[in-house]
Amino acid sequence: MSHPRGPLSQLRRGHEELVLGLLRKHGPLSRSELGKHCGLSRTTLYDILADLVAAGAVVATTSQEGPRGRGRPAETLTLNPDAGQAIGIDFARRGLHVAAINLAHEIVGSASEPHDADLPWAQRVDLAERLIGSLTITGTGLDNAALSGSGIGALSSTGTGTGALRLGALDAIGVGVVGPVDGRAAEDDDVAAEAPHPVQVLLRERFGVPVLLDNNTRLAALGESIWGAAADGQDVLYLRLSHGVGGGLVVGGSLHRGAYGLSGEFGHITVEPGGARCGCGGRGCLETVASIRAVLDAYRAAGGRATDVRELVKAVEAADRTALTLLEGVGARIGEMLAALCNAIGPSVIVVGGELVETGPALIEPIERALHEHVMPVSRHRVSLRRATLGEVAGALGGIALVLHESPLLSRYPAGPDLAEHPPSVDRRPVTTKQSRHP
Amino acid sequence: MSHPRGPLSQLRRGHEELVLGLLRKHGPLSRSELGKHCGLSRTTLYDILADLVAAGAVVATTSQEGPRGRGRPAETLTLNPDAGQAIGIDFARRGLHVAAINLAHEIVGSASEPHDADLPWAQRVDLAERLIGSLTITGTGLDNAALSGSGIGALSSTGTGTGALRLGALDAIGVGVVGPVDGRAAEDDDVAAEAPHPVQVLLRERFGVPVLLDNNTRLAALGESIWGAAADGQDVLYLRLSHGVGGGLVVGGSLHRGAYGLSGEFGHITVEPGGARCGCGGRGCLETVASIRAVLDAYRAAGGRATDVRELVKAVEAADRTALTLLEGVGARIGEMLAALCNAIGPSVIVVGGELVETGPALIEPIERALHEHVMPVSRHRVSLRRATLGEVAGALGGIALVLHESPLLSRYPAGPDLAEHPPSVDRRPVTTKQSRHP
Repeated sequence: MSHPRGPLSQLRRGHEELVLGLLRKHGPLSRSELGKHCGLSRTTLYDILADLVAAGAVVATTSQEGPRGRGRPAETLTLNPDAGQAIGIDFARRGLHVAAINLAHEIVGSASEPHDADLPWAQRVDLAERLIGSLTITGTGLDNAALSGSGIGALSSTGTGTGALRLGALDAIGVGVVGPVDGRAAEDDDVAAEAPHPVQVLLRERFGVPVLLDNNTRLAALGESIWGAAADGQDVLYLRLSHGVGGGLVVGGSLHRGAYGLSGEFGHITVEPGGARCGCGGRGCLETVASIRAVLDAYRAAGGRATDVRELVKAVEAADRTALTLLEGVGARIGEMLAALCNAIGPSVIVVGGELVETGPALIEPIERALHEHVMPVSRHRVSLRRATLGEVAGALGGIALVLHESPLLSRYPAGPDLAEHPPSVDRRPVTTKQSRHP
Repeated sequence: MSHPRGPLSQLRRGHEELVLGLLRKHGPLSRSELGKHCGLSRTTLYDILADLVAAGAVVATTSQEGPRGRGRPAETLTLNPDAGQAIGIDFARRGLHVAAINLAHEIVGSASEPHDADLPWAQRVDLAERLIGSLTITGTGLDNAALSGSGIGALSSTGTGTGALRLGALDAIGVGVVGPVDGRAAEDDDVAAEAPHPVQVLLRERFGVPVLLDNNTRLAALGESIWGAAADGQDVLYLRLSHGVGGGLVVGGSLHRGAYGLSGEFGHITVEPGGARCGCGGRGCLETVASIRAVLDAYRAAGGRATDVRELVKAVEAADRTALTLLEGVGARIGEMLAALCNAIGPSVIVVGGELVETGPALIEPIERALHEHVMPVSRHRVSLRRATLGEVAGALGGIALVLHESPLLSRYPAGPDLAEHPPSVDRRPVTTKQSRHP
């Protein structure tokens, strides 16, 4: 199937998205109800519905509640909750996280597995494929047997069992990786198009769909803003206190990358002028104060005993003075920095995640005090500070969100029922939608 | 003329914007060239062109360069450079600035006039109307006489002379005011729609077109990012050092408002913990260090003599040690703050404006040094620090940019040739496009 990219083909995709959006919003609808809502001509609508049903994105069922005795009962159209519309994968430094949603934008499953930091990309992608194959559909209540004849094949070699995720309607994969990602370089004529990340190439070969990429901490920010602590927040600041300190900004509902893919580097904001040397080359960066290692080092230097966050949490629970005083100071530095960013950016929600947050109120309360002391008084009661809720799959869920946000007009038509037998040609699909402008 | 707002009417406006965009990009085009570029059907294209010509947005002229001897010469379509598509007005505290552009997105004129801080809104709007009427079209080279029969009337009572700006194709007015503006409140169902600003009501009554509103310093940021020091910058941080200290963020080419219209409040970021009390209620805010008054006060406290910025500039030019040392310290505080924001937001350009920048390198160089010292090394050579170039009309130009950015699908069809005789009914047009969703 060809994918012309002129205005008319975009128009058609817009119409498809309109129909899918209406089914997402209203649930099952008859053809005539759909017609009323979408404003398309009968011919156009029927044409689009036929294609969506053929692709497995939409299911037509005979309504039980139609008016009796007035001709044949009306057909009702529903999103196919069994179609995996998007997959997110977080290739973290020492572990892999995957998640999938269906066309109704419900999370249908997630899985994680740790691995060594030096695992090669090819093996990480193998692992990702295996984890995706292990995802089973939960909570849809749909009769899978009813769809078995619909021609939707399973992509994953291990995903053929009953209840396994069906990838026939897979749209795209959203991927998080460690380090700066400049998603826009390829759009800028002045800059040579960024080479695709190896994981983009490998995943595209494996799944035959577009692979969108971003920094995994930024994706966690997007994930938390959609399904997590800041659900429905349009302007969200996410800070992660882990082995590194970083974060991301969601601005007007969209992930903010910055001019060179270098936004959200909260860990490298100077909080102690002339302080400790940081890995970035600077001095007194927040990461030298608030990373797991920095906090544990400072705790031991003050006479405390803890080799990991769990032991630190125990010390806090035992009301250890040294631990509480230390976290009070760390929290104050964090809160002061957050206040400055609030004044500049104006988020409605600040989400703090990462392992260090497991120390609870001993850290969160001093953060909140310093934030409230230094933010503009007029904003003081408007910004809400919350703990992250998505845990380690935040990045994978953010990958899905990236697909939903960045490619609303991506075709609903995937590679077809049997990719294994007919692998996609190299230029059938772009690695990312953006790079397609510079073939 | 009715303005239905369903998907199909949006589609039509999208087609109009497509045609206007092509003429903006390619210059004069024949109908068949337009047809090739836009992908619309002949019928749809001709229909849209007829309406655009009737509205005065597009001019049809007989091409001199058409192939001879092959039927009648082809008609060429051009944007009407004589149509004032958008007006920007900056209602600053003690002065008024206006600017206008034509459909080709060329600035056709600007004007300023100071006034007392307590001038009532009605009189400010009178003054705005007078200033707009005084704008004359420059540099278009178009024969005005050729258009005199086209039915495009002049709106402004004082703008009837030859060469005066014609407002027949006026789309909207973008307005900057002092203080926080939350442009999105009216979109949020949880929040009562913000009452329109008095200036919105008055201008709409006067001109009969939508009036978009934002904070005037943020609009200056947008103006500088389009026509000024950061022209074509997609991610721009603008800082204004004036009687107050404020600024704005342009994110991905769009103005960033923040969740409650409170973004860009750089003046209230704490730069000296426990420092001087600020008007906002905080302590040690940047404004207590880097506003005109703060700098002059500190200069006099250190034994210097200057009652305004001009005298301070003279002291700097005379290499006055006290002045140079003071600005060195002020610049360092500014640069440190800018570095923190760079790490968080990742702009490609930082623009510094406001009267205090007239002190030149004595202030800019210490800002740059502190910025480079504290920004992440990886970003150090990517972010560019520049002085603002638009001067006092930056806000008015930003108002125009607001119109172009926020209402790309606004109808090209204005009130008609003679608004004075047929004033628009109250609900014919929304005060802003956004509020129209909550009538």
